[in-house]
Amino acid sequence: MAQLFRDHIEAISPLTDDEFGYILSHYTLKKLRKHAFLVQEGDNVRQEYFVLKGCVKAYTTEPESGKDFIFQFAVEDWWITDREAFFSKTPATINIDCLEDSELLGITYDNREKLAAEMPKYEHFLRVKSNWGYVSLQKRIQLMIMASAQERYEKFLSQYPHLVSRIPKAFIASYLGVTRETLSRLK
Amino acid sequence: MAQLFRDHIEAISPLTDDEFGYILSHYTLKKLRKHAFLVQEGDNVRQEYFVLKGCVKAYTTEPESGKDFIFQFAVEDWWITDREAFFSKTPATINIDCLEDSELLGITYDNREKLAAEMPKYEHFLRVKSNWGYVSLQKRIQLMIMASAQERYEKFLSQYPHLVSRIPKAFIASYLGVTRETLSRLK
Repeated sequence: MAQLFRDHIEAISPLTDDEFGYILSHYTLKKLRKHAFLVQEGDNVRQEYFVLKGCVKAYTTEPESGKDFIFQFAVEDWWITDREAFFSKTPATINIDCLEDSELLGITYDNREKLAAEMPKYEHFLRVKSNWGYVSLQKRIQLMIMASAQERYEKFLSQYPHLVSRIPKAFIASYLGVTRETLSRLK
Repeated sequence: MAQLFRDHIEAISPLTDDEFGYILSHYTLKKLRKHAFLVQEGDNVRQEYFVLKGCVKAYTTEPESGKDFIFQFAVEDWWITDREAFFSKTPATINIDCLEDSELLGITYDNREKLAAEMPKYEHFLRVKSNWGYVSLQKRIQLMIMASAQERYEKFLSQYPHLVSRIPKAFIASYLGVTRETLSRLK
């Protein structure tokens, strides 16, 4: 599965075998069962994760209703963590848990900075990925404020066709900010 | 005012005079009057902007109601553009206009990539800034889904105390997703 990770980096920064081995040596493998938490509100968030296998969801809980609001999914080839907590070294304000048995590669803040300082190719990779992460959140915000549920659902289908069969409808409804019943009427 | 820009970069990557001069030579100054558009929906977005002076707002218009929904403000020392359009070279899906007479430094995508490739210090700066941009959008999403208007307003006041006196209440209400009347009752 390390090949998936290598391909992911090499789409931006081609590497020699030694360079990839060196990068990989700074990551640790984490295996989690379905329903397990990767991050819980209040945690110190010591790592950023690359998903090798599985599916996780990131969400906050509305203080008044206690309802979960999902703001991101991550499957193979995606990154996930509570980035605010990870970079600011503040307690987590979101939860991340597993929708499937999952395997992730985690890296600490210090190792991430070390690799970036040592390897311009790695810093370049991080910079380009971070740009796209920003863009995906901008899209997410626009999705949240677009008026019609139909449009939000269609946009989700076109952006993430591979997620629809893997993620329970109730979670897609939460992500889209519509009720389960509304989602059932859309198609 | 170039000093503001230099200090902004040097908070992350210290520079020699020559290095800063070289970076600055890749930027162009843009002066806009209050109400002028920096980006309009449908535009090709050729530049990313650093605000030297003034205040701008980024917003989308809800298709059904025609209501504007503000998702970001930017004042001195902040970056702004339609990042999705800028990086993907797709037409803008948001508008950005000036709340005050504004002066901005703009850089094209090609010059941004060129500087990053030539100067590791600049790539490092971009990588770190991009991380924080991501974090600010994550906060924004959490702000949008927090249940009470009071909490959202208090969070805005604590995050952006310097913006409150500069931005008309109607725009703060739009940013917070509350009516102007609700905002007046909060304090």
